[in-house]
Amino acid sequence: MNFQFNLPTNIVLKTGIVRQVAGFLPLYRISKPLILTDKGINKAGLLQGIIESLTNENIDFAVYDDVQPNPKDKYCGLAADFARVNNVDGIIAVGGGSVLDTAKALGILLTHDGVINDWEGDNTLQRDITPLICIPTTAGTGSEATNIAVITDTERKVKMGIVDDRIAPKLSLLDPELTKGLPASITASTGMDALTHAIEAYTSRSSSPVTDALALHAIRLIKDYFLEAVQNGANMEARENILSASLMAGIAFSQSNVGSVHCISEAAGGLYDAPHGVLNSIFLPYVFEFNMEANLEKHADVAYALGVDQNLPVREASKEGAKLLFEMVEKVGIPKFSDLPAVDPKDFAKLAKTSKETPMDADNVRSLTVEDYLTIIKNAYNSNH
Amino acid sequence: MNFQFNLPTNIVLKTGIVRQVAGFLPLYRISKPLILTDKGINKAGLLQGIIESLTNENIDFAVYDDVQPNPKDKYCGLAADFARVNNVDGIIAVGGGSVLDTAKALGILLTHDGVINDWEGDNTLQRDITPLICIPTTAGTGSEATNIAVITDTERKVKMGIVDDRIAPKLSLLDPELTKGLPASITASTGMDALTHAIEAYTSRSSSPVTDALALHAIRLIKDYFLEAVQNGANMEARENILSASLMAGIAFSQSNVGSVHCISEAAGGLYDAPHGVLNSIFLPYVFEFNMEANLEKHADVAYALGVDQNLPVREASKEGAKLLFEMVEKVGIPKFSDLPAVDPKDFAKLAKTSKETPMDADNVRSLTVEDYLTIIKNAYNSNH
Ligand SMILES: NC(=O)c1ccc[n+]([C@@H]2O[C@H](COP(=O)([O-])OP(=O)(O)OC[C@H]3O[C@@H](n4cnc5c(N)ncnc54)[C@H](O)[C@@H]3O)[C@@H](O)[C@H]2O)c1
Ligand SMILES: NC(=O)c1ccc[n+]([C@@H]2O[C@H](COP(=O)([O-])OP(=O)(O)OC[C@H]3O[C@@H](n4cnc5c(N)ncnc54)[C@H](O)[C@@H]3O)[C@@H](O)[C@H]2O)c1
Ligand SMILES: [Fe+2]
Ligand SMILES: [Fe+2]
Repeated sequence: MNFQFNLPTNIVLKTGIVRQVAGFLPLYRISKPLILTDKGINKAGLLQGIIESLTNENIDFAVYDDVQPNPKDKYCGLAADFARVNNVDGIIAVGGGSVLDTAKALGILLTHDGVINDWEGDNTLQRDITPLICIPTTAGTGSEATNIAVITDTERKVKMGIVDDRIAPKLSLLDPELTKGLPASITASTGMDALTHAIEAYTSRSSSPVTDALALHAIRLIKDYFLEAVQNGANMEARENILSASLMAGIAFSQSNVGSVHCISEAAGGLYDAPHGVLNSIFLPYVFEFNMEANLEKHADVAYALGVDQNLPVREASKEGAKLLFEMVEKVGIPKFSDLPAVDPKDFAKLAKTSKETPMDADNVRSLTVEDYLTIIKNAYNSNH
Repeated sequence: MNFQFNLPTNIVLKTGIVRQVAGFLPLYRISKPLILTDKGINKAGLLQGIIESLTNENIDFAVYDDVQPNPKDKYCGLAADFARVNNVDGIIAVGGGSVLDTAKALGILLTHDGVINDWEGDNTLQRDITPLICIPTTAGTGSEATNIAVITDTERKVKMGIVDDRIAPKLSLLDPELTKGLPASITASTGMDALTHAIEAYTSRSSSPVTDALALHAIRLIKDYFLEAVQNGANMEARENILSASLMAGIAFSQSNVGSVHCISEAAGGLYDAPHGVLNSIFLPYVFEFNMEANLEKHADVAYALGVDQNLPVREASKEGAKLLFEMVEKVGIPKFSDLPAVDPKDFAKLAKTSKETPMDADNVRSLTVEDYLTIIKNAYNSNH
C-alpha cells in the first residue's frame, strides 16, 4: 500500500448557497469575476441567484455563455479573449463538466502563454491559474473536485487530459437546487458518469483506502437515489444525494484513476462528439464484465453496494453486478451505441487503438490489448452480451 | 443536508517515507525544523530515519523529546522556549496524539502572544502557525489530519479543545513501519480510539455523506485488521490498514464531530490523566447502547460494518453491534474503569457534569442529560450491562 491524498478544493454543499457567492470572493482575492456558463444554463435561469448576490454587493462582473459541450480547444481561446477584454481577475464557472473544464482551461490561458493544446498531460503547468470557483449544475463529472480538465483537440479528434493540482478549483459550491430542472435524460447520463467514476476508481490499480471509502459510498448512494432522481427530478433528497455521490466519485477518481470505460468513451467522444455520460453508460457494463476476473473481491463489493445479495460468493455476485448495470442503463433510457449519430463500424479499429493509447489504460484493473478493446466496442455496437 | 468539506493537510502513506522527509521541507519553506517527540519514541529509535534524511541533506535541526502524555498547558510553554532559543522555523512532530497535539500548541505559541489556554475554543487564532509536518507513530487519534489540539488545563483539570483550520498540519507522512513496534496494549487502546472516532463521526448530528463514507470504511478496515494488529504487531498489512483507518476516522470526525464517548473520556482524562484510548474503549459500548434508539439505521450500519449479519433488522443488528463492542474491548485487553488508578465514585457527579459541558455533547445523536451521563459512568464502573 502506498498513496497520497490531498484535496486542494474547499467544498460547501447547501441549498441556496449560490445566493451567497459574493461573500466568498474576498477569500480568493477576486474583485471582478467572469461568470462562465453555456446557453442552456443561462436560458434555464440558473445564473439568477449568483448575479443577484454580486449585484447586491456592488461587485462588477462579466458573463460569457458561449461554452460548447465536449469543449474544443479553439473555443477556450475565444473565452480567454473575452476574459482579457473584460479585465476579470477570477472565474465563477456555472454548469456541467463542459463549463467547469473550460473554466480550468481558461484559467490556464489567462496565466500561461500559447494555446491550450500546449498544456496537455500531467503537471505541465508553470504557475497558479486564475482563482476559480465552480458551481456544478449536473451531478456527474465531479469536475468541481478534480484537478483534471478534458478538452477536445479538434485537429487530432481526441480528448486531451490536463492534470495538475493547480487547476483544481479553490472553492466549489454545490447547490442541489440548480440540478432540480435537469432533464431526465441528462440526469440519467451524467449520473451514470458518476457511477462509472466510482466503479473505476474503486477497482483501479491506483486505488487507496481513502478513495475506496469515497467510491463505495458513492455507489451506495447511487443505488438508493439514482432512479428516483431520474424519474422524479423534483425530489430534492434524491438530488442532493446524487450530487454528493458525484462529488465523492470525483474526489475518488481524481486521486485514484478511471479505467478502460473512460479510455473508450474519451476516444469515442473525440471522434463522434457524443455526450460523455452516454458513452460511459454504454461501455460500463461490458468493461465491468471483462474486468471482473482480475479482482473478483472488488467487483463483488461493487455489486453488493449496488444491492446484490451479500450472501452470494464473489464470482456470482460480480456477475449479478454486471447484469444490474446492463439493466440500469436500459431503465434510465440511455441510447444504444448503434443509434448514436455518426457511429460507424469502420472507425472501430482506430477507436480501439486510441482507447489503448489513452493514459488511463495503465490503471485499469485488467490489462486490455487493442483486440480486447475492439471486441468490447463491437459487442457494445451489437448489444451482444 | 448541508455540509462543508475541506482538508488542509496533504497526506502521504508509504513505507519508508520518513527517510525522505528532507525533500518536503522546501515546499513549506522550512530551513531549520524542530523535531518534537517524547522519550518513549526517541528511545524506540523512531527518529533515526528522519535524522538521517536531514543530516544527508545538511539541514540543521533541533530535537525536543520532553512531550508528556495527555499534554499539559505549561509543558507547551517549555517546548516553545526551547524552540525560540533554537531559532527553528518549522516543526516535525513524531509521535502519538500527545506529540502531535503539543506540536499544534507549539505552533500557536510561536506565532501568537500569551499562554496556550488563551486560545481555547473554535477559530480563536489570529494568523497562520509555524509550518507543521506530522508523522504519527500510533494509529488512533487521527491528529495528523485534524484541525484539533487537545491540551489539559492543569488548573481546571479539564481537557481544552483548540479547533482551527490553521493548526491542521501542512503535511502528514504516514509510515506504517513506525507503528511496527507499538506494544500490543497501546495498539489496542489507540485502535479503539480510531474506532470511536469512526462510530461517533458516523452517527453524529453533523455527519455528511463524505464523512459517512470515510467513517464506514474505517470501521470495515478495523473489523478486518484490528485484532491481527494487536495480536501480531509485525503483520505490516494489518498495520498499514489500521493506520489508514485511523487517518480516515480522523478526517471524518474533524469534519463531522465526535460525541458523548469523547465527552466522558475527555472529562475523565482531565481528572485522572488516564490514556485517552483506554477511556474511549471503556465508554464506547455503553454510549453505543444508549444512543442506538436515536438512529437505529446508522447504528445498524455500524454493526453490519463490524460484521453483524446483514439480514438482521436494524434494532437487532444494533444490539449485536453493542455486544460486539463489549467483546472487542475485552478481547484486546482494555483495563476496567474500576481498575484505573485514582478513579473514585465520589468524582462521578462532577464527571457527569463536566461531560455534559463538553462542546461535543451537542452533536451526539441522542440528547443526554447529566443524569444519563452519570448512569453511563456508574454502569461502566460496575461493568453493568
Ligand atoms: N474534469 C473532469 O474531471 C471530468 C470528468 C468527467 C467528465 N468530464 C467532461 O465533462 C464534460 C461533460 O459534462 P456534463 O456531463 O456535465 O455535461 P455538459 O456540461 O456538456 O452539459 C450537458 C448539457 O446539459 C445542460 N445542462 C447542464 N446543467 C443543466 C441544468 N441544471 N439544467 C438544464 N440544463 C443543464 C447544458 O446546457 C448542456 O447542454 C465532457 O467534456 C467530459 O469529458 C470532465
Ligand atoms: N487532536 C486530535 O484530533 C486528537 C484526537 C484524539 C485524541 N487526541 C489526544 O491524543 C492524546 C493521545 O494520543 P495517543 O493515544 O496517540 O497516545 P500518546 O501520544 O500519549 O502515546 C502513548 C505512549 O505510546 C508511546 N508510543 C507512541 N508511539 C510509539 C511507537 N511507535 N512505539 C513505541 N511506543 C510508542 C509514547 O511514547 C507514549 O508513551 C490524548 O491527549 C488525546 O486527547 C487528539
Ligand atoms: Fe467521466
Ligand atoms: Fe479520540
